[in-house]
Amino acid sequence: MSTATGSKRGRPGYDQETVLRIAVEAFNQHGYEATSMGLLAERLGVSKSAIYHHVDSKEALLELALDQALGGLEAILSEPGASSGAPEGRLEYVLRGTVAVLVDKLPYVTLLLRLRGNTAMERGALRRRRDFDREIAALVAAAQADGALRSDVDARTAERLLFGTINSIVEWYRPGGPLTAAELADQIISMVFDGLRS
Amino acid sequence: MSTATGSKRGRPGYDQETVLRIAVEAFNQHGYEATSMGLLAERLGVSKSAIYHHVDSKEALLELALDQALGGLEAILSEPGASSGAPEGRLEYVLRGTVAVLVDKLPYVTLLLRLRGNTAMERGALRRRRDFDREIAALVAAAQADGALRSDVDARTAERLLFGTINSIVEWYRPGGPLTAAELADQIISMVFDGLRS
Repeated sequence: MSTATGSKRGRPGYDQETVLRIAVEAFNQHGYEATSMGLLAERLGVSKSAIYHHVDSKEALLELALDQALGGLEAILSEPGASSGAPEGRLEYVLRGTVAVLVDKLPYVTLLLRLRGNTAMERGALRRRRDFDREIAALVAAAQADGALRSDVDARTAERLLFGTINSIVEWYRPGGPLTAAELADQIISMVFDGLRS
Repeated sequence: MSTATGSKRGRPGYDQETVLRIAVEAFNQHGYEATSMGLLAERLGVSKSAIYHHVDSKEALLELALDQALGGLEAILSEPGASSGAPEGRLEYVLRGTVAVLVDKLPYVTLLLRLRGNTAMERGALRRRRDFDREIAALVAAAQADGALRSDVDARTAERLLFGTINSIVEWYRPGGPLTAAELADQIISMVFDGLRS
């Protein structure tokens, strides 16, 4: 009875990416712990077994989602702009890239930022995030040693405050609003490097 | 069989403040929804009815906790340093005060910052927080109009980024560590007003 484009999975067109996107929406809305595979199936309008066709478990969905966020952030570090030139320019490049990834993968990064580390897999994701943070702290320290950044703000504290500033955009920024991602990145870079004072 | 210092509530010395402090710890650790009055009673080593001697409900505990955070923040605005003088100085005063309240009432502010607005009471607390934020945005705009702060960063965006920077300290700052609350406030004020560039 199924058409040529139909599927035994109840609805045509659901691929792993779509299942993941809808799962991440539900995790962010209700919390990961509170979201059951049954609820996901309901949202997708498919059976639970249809979801298990795409992924082995709810944790596998979380792992895929976290990898989207972490993979996006880590990829910035291997771009030429992040690895060559003076430390200050590399830092600015990485921070702009971070804003772009946050905006581009907003629900995935939101999930990462709310992670508590309840399982070994979650703690592994938090380790990857800390490794990324540590690379930025090293860039801040290098730019301070270079004389480009002031040294009276501790590099580790500066790095934490930088990410505090940048990561907070997941709380209020919505793509498609009056502020484009590039303008947002400009305002953040401008504030953290040059300050608000005129 | 009870001693003179004993109480019918099982353990001597628990007042509403202690019950609140331990409840807030549990809410932050397990999440408010996931924390039952039974779990709180277990942590306190008292019966559930002993807790109901102090508060009417779990929501009443949350309301008291949020009021600690919001009351602390709102009190800053009525201090002379926040209400007289040039807007830039008032803004700096309020931001320093905000850091001090965050450090002083860390678990209460953490709870406020994680609030999702699931009930009418929670939405009321979020409204009070937004009113506070709006006062700061007005101060930023006044300091821009004054020429003290640059005008190429939108006042509302600047206010959001300022709180992003400041609020993020609940994620990593622990009182009693190497960085005092006053030093932390200095580093934050210095970064947001003058930037990291040397």
